[in-house]
Amino acid sequence: MPSIIRRQFINDSHSVIDEALEGFSLTNPQYVSWDSENNLIFRQNRASGKVGLVSGGGSGHEPLHAGFVGTGMLDVAVCGAVFASPTAGQVHAGTTLADSGAGVVQIVKNYTGDVLNFQIAASLAEDDGLKVEDILVNDDLASDTDDDGPGRRGTAAVVTVEKLVGALAERGAPLNVVTKVGREIVDRSRSLAIALDAGAHPGDAHAAFELEGHEVEFGVGIHGERGTGRIEFAKVDELVEQIVTPLANSLELVRGDAVIALVNGLGGAYPIELSIAARQVHRLLGARGVTVARSLAGSYVTSLDMHGLSVTLTVVSDEHIELWDEPVLTPTFTW
Amino acid sequence: MPSIIRRQFINDSHSVIDEALEGFSLTNPQYVSWDSENNLIFRQNRASGKVGLVSGGGSGHEPLHAGFVGTGMLDVAVCGAVFASPTAGQVHAGTTLADSGAGVVQIVKNYTGDVLNFQIAASLAEDDGLKVEDILVNDDLASDTDDDGPGRRGTAAVVTVEKLVGALAERGAPLNVVTKVGREIVDRSRSLAIALDAGAHPGDAHAAFELEGHEVEFGVGIHGERGTGRIEFAKVDELVEQIVTPLANSLELVRGDAVIALVNGLGGAYPIELSIAARQVHRLLGARGVTVARSLAGSYVTSLDMHGLSVTLTVVSDEHIELWDEPVLTPTFTW
Repeated sequence: MPSIIRRQFINDSHSVIDEALEGFSLTNPQYVSWDSENNLIFRQNRASGKVGLVSGGGSGHEPLHAGFVGTGMLDVAVCGAVFASPTAGQVHAGTTLADSGAGVVQIVKNYTGDVLNFQIAASLAEDDGLKVEDILVNDDLASDTDDDGPGRRGTAAVVTVEKLVGALAERGAPLNVVTKVGREIVDRSRSLAIALDAGAHPGDAHAAFELEGHEVEFGVGIHGERGTGRIEFAKVDELVEQIVTPLANSLELVRGDAVIALVNGLGGAYPIELSIAARQVHRLLGARGVTVARSLAGSYVTSLDMHGLSVTLTVVSDEHIELWDEPVLTPTFTW
Repeated sequence: MPSIIRRQFINDSHSVIDEALEGFSLTNPQYVSWDSENNLIFRQNRASGKVGLVSGGGSGHEPLHAGFVGTGMLDVAVCGAVFASPTAGQVHAGTTLADSGAGVVQIVKNYTGDVLNFQIAASLAEDDGLKVEDILVNDDLASDTDDDGPGRRGTAAVVTVEKLVGALAERGAPLNVVTKVGREIVDRSRSLAIALDAGAHPGDAHAAFELEGHEVEFGVGIHGERGTGRIEFAKVDELVEQIVTPLANSLELVRGDAVIALVNGLGGAYPIELSIAARQVHRLLGARGVTVARSLAGSYVTSLDMHGLSVTLTVVSDEHIELWDEPVLTPTFTW
């Protein structure tokens, strides 16, 4: 396949995140403010006396995490460069900002750099007298190996975790409860992703990888990491079945279970494609006797303009569904 | 530039809209229902005794219009095939469904097929005893010519029109007021779009057009229509200035004016790009002494996966801003 030249609407590849966060905060002043020194997006309507929630990581996954800052979800998002962890100093500033007297929970996607920098920041914040806990999100089934490596990557389940834990914190639950419930939600969540094309970094003329026309990258990561292998291109219903079957097996879904299902576009998939994929997720789970209690279909955890999609399933109780339904006021989700 | 093969996550190019609408309604049951016979998306929480609002047109522009159905915005969206007007029969069914006793306003983007089919449907509905008015949206400055052609195309201003008029109808304003205010909002709105690549139809291996690496299509339409010409690729701040200047001139913006600004992705632009463009829109208008009273940056009126963006400016009064701020409960916008 010939290689196409990618172009982007940017000014300078070195300033994209600063400029994007400025634009984002100008567009969403009712929800968020921007700390330009540390590239923190924090909620406009500051909380008091609740557990603070801070998340973050490399940029390039928008609307994650800045789009999830607001009442009922995150207090602070710490924004690194594209696909690069924020520094420990940035995370320390974000953790401090998230505190309103009841301690802070860091929601961290499982990548080596993020884990390290959030841990250093937690130590620094604890030295300052803050109470800090963490929820490590590691939902990506494609990276579920038996070796001693870093373990499963954190991907789109972070959306579900941030929504449910955000509601719990907003209710006034204490630090240990927020942490415990968050970790349980992670344990109940798995994701898998496929792609037809990788994304291209701002300023890069080429995508991270290219595929032949008969190939689909299976188990692809959100930083352009190659997947566990290539499968044959097929109708989306067949591709989605190849995702949902291992997810259901891994979660040991049985008749009568309820899930929150997230059909997530990786950036380059258009809404028609995501809606068709969502239809098949509903059909496959319905055929298994599994209730889709709540679902979303949209581009929430992206990989620049990667033409791909992921499915995340979280096994939920009635209490989780109540948390899902609680009000949220962020640039991305409001209900 | 070599031509890249496009692929999509679909099952069959003939069934994409039926399948997408099924998936969309399964994903958003709290907001909408689906009439599969006429491919209508209608609000779950049916109104009574208010002016009904129906819009629609060809598909491929998602989330437009189905994503804007719900309390405070549209009552019914009529969904045609990709880039093809719905039939007069579909629009008639949608217009009938939108009526709850106070008449119906059709919000129609200015394309020959849409205008014709909505007019036929209005006549049929009037024969049934309904009162029907229309708001013709024609904001695209690129198609503003002096000839006797069809006039300016309708593009992303339809979002602003549907939000403001939706709030007015929800308040209980009568048919003539809703119509009059809607037409005024159209008069106060202009848009311009640029693209780096065209979109590809579901099932098509190629985009509608391709550009050389130094070119940008200026004044492009939302159906892959070529623009008014090609301009040189440049930093996005320069490109946005080339859009905002003619918009401001056409609207005769002066110091002290207030606008609602919509920075709209055409499908393939990622959020970082749109936020950077939004930053420049705010800066340019600020430099002119024009207040950006409210703004959005996101992909709302798309052209499949076209890598492009548009800017829409609407000159607003305090009353328009109040209408903007009124509650809305749809799959896309909720506040």
